[in-house]
Amino acid sequence: MRIAVIGSGSVGCYYGAKLAQCGHDVRFLMRRDLEAVRRSGLTIKSCDGDFQLKAAAFGDPGEIGQVDLVICALKATAIDDAERLIRPCLGQHTRVLALMNGLGIEDRFVEWFGPERVFGGMAFVCINRGEPGVVHHLAYGRVAFGHYLDDLKQVEEMAKLFADAGIETMVRPSLRQARWEKLMWNIPFSTLTVTAGGVTTHEIINDPGLKQMAWALMQETGQAGNAHGCAIDIAVMTRKMMSNTLTMPPYRPSMLIDYQNKQPLEVEAILGEPVRQAAAVGVPVPTIEAQYRLTSFLDRLNRGEISVSQSRW
Amino acid sequence: MRIAVIGSGSVGCYYGAKLAQCGHDVRFLMRRDLEAVRRSGLTIKSCDGDFQLKAAAFGDPGEIGQVDLVICALKATAIDDAERLIRPCLGQHTRVLALMNGLGIEDRFVEWFGPERVFGGMAFVCINRGEPGVVHHLAYGRVAFGHYLDDLKQVEEMAKLFADAGIETMVRPSLRQARWEKLMWNIPFSTLTVTAGGVTTHEIINDPGLKQMAWALMQETGQAGNAHGCAIDIAVMTRKMMSNTLTMPPYRPSMLIDYQNKQPLEVEAILGEPVRQAAAVGVPVPTIEAQYRLTSFLDRLNRGEISVSQSRW
Repeated sequence: MRIAVIGSGSVGCYYGAKLAQCGHDVRFLMRRDLEAVRRSGLTIKSCDGDFQLKAAAFGDPGEIGQVDLVICALKATAIDDAERLIRPCLGQHTRVLALMNGLGIEDRFVEWFGPERVFGGMAFVCINRGEPGVVHHLAYGRVAFGHYLDDLKQVEEMAKLFADAGIETMVRPSLRQARWEKLMWNIPFSTLTVTAGGVTTHEIINDPGLKQMAWALMQETGQAGNAHGCAIDIAVMTRKMMSNTLTMPPYRPSMLIDYQNKQPLEVEAILGEPVRQAAAVGVPVPTIEAQYRLTSFLDRLNRGEISVSQSRW
Repeated sequence: MRIAVIGSGSVGCYYGAKLAQCGHDVRFLMRRDLEAVRRSGLTIKSCDGDFQLKAAAFGDPGEIGQVDLVICALKATAIDDAERLIRPCLGQHTRVLALMNGLGIEDRFVEWFGPERVFGGMAFVCINRGEPGVVHHLAYGRVAFGHYLDDLKQVEEMAKLFADAGIETMVRPSLRQARWEKLMWNIPFSTLTVTAGGVTTHEIINDPGLKQMAWALMQETGQAGNAHGCAIDIAVMTRKMMSNTLTMPPYRPSMLIDYQNKQPLEVEAILGEPVRQAAAVGVPVPTIEAQYRLTSFLDRLNRGEISVSQSRW
């Protein structure tokens, strides 16, 4: 199968490399790593065993040409570039997988490309970029898949493609529910690690006050999701996410890593869109809204978009 | 009148000095500034004109002895020391004025000393300490007074004492309402300047998202106050506080100054007690609660009580 990876950060590189390794014709759209990968290939230093790949790296999606599958692994902050970057790779039957964080991503894809070909993927993986051309895969790797129209047969095919490449997969009958359930973890933990001063998940879950706030964020998220037609068992999901986080080693979510690297945060996909979707169905989400206002401000302050006034007093 | 000032930070020193200047026998309980004031007196560098005072400074309340009025100007974080420090100054008719921030202060005083003699004072003043023995009074200076039992005659006497010393005063018929109304400013602005990354009131009120959050905090505060028997006109008060803050120069509230100096924050008096009092009457205050959890955590992180885990990932 011919596959284009649009947005070759650590997630795009890792899953693209796994698919290439098992024989697919994978073409990576690269920016930062383009020259390094052309020169020396792509290196995956993985907890499951390192491997190297002579990857097909491109600087322009027009050079990639039409493919069978586009894996879009851009950061959610780059969503406005997605159509321009994906369009040149689309043929009549090309499927598009949004392997991205947050809510509302697939909706944009559907506006551009129609609903039949749009899939969502939720990666549960600890991964980050090293020097150009190198990705560090530290733990986990599972991907959960859904289809925009919840076409289960198509989801199963997509999951099989990844499973055949040695990736742990999950089939989600409802993409919407999968997205909201993932937010039940991301909204508390990705954003509290930032607003609580740059700490790991360990400090959040071991502080009774912040744990209580994480709990409130999970409840509000689940309620908003259910008002949008999901059937989340909020109590069960809350217990599961709390106990998973408690048993995980101290973790810095990608939002915190972005913050510490002074990169733009995925605020709108993780917080802004859920707040707007909750408002649209009249579900109060005051705790999420507080996190949204604070995280959005801290993001802009952190990147110098807001400067602090001199106080005369 | 013989007056003891317990807790001689900038507020205690300033108002004590004004009262001494007009002839009262004011005795200051001091710690940091004790030696400097004994040596060189107390210097008030004030926007209304500088003055100097040969102040009576004591290191132990037992040496102060019984007085007619105790002005307690401790930080709210030192509330547990207040009884021990005030008790030696009390005679049968000694009145006690809590010139402190936050909710629940006078309740503690009443437990210790009974309700008849307890007053609350809310200072609206920009002031801070300079080198030992020096206070910088930068702007404003008004004090609003209430009595624990809302004994208006007694409030008026207290206000007259201060007014005769050249201090702008206000008489508040309901101490409880005065405290909750003051919180309608302190809860948003004292605490958002901390949780939004160390900015002034100017950045808060000029960011649409944080202004919205400040608005939500004011509504919740007013609603909790009204459930406790106040009759706050929340819409009017909100408008007034927003427009006052908009026209003020950029301001660093004392909570932010404490944070930047790595001093303990008045979290319980400004946030914890309002959250508990709201819970007691069943009024939801989710936005205040979020600020409470975050501010409390940031305070402890800032002072090294919490350390950040090494993340393996």
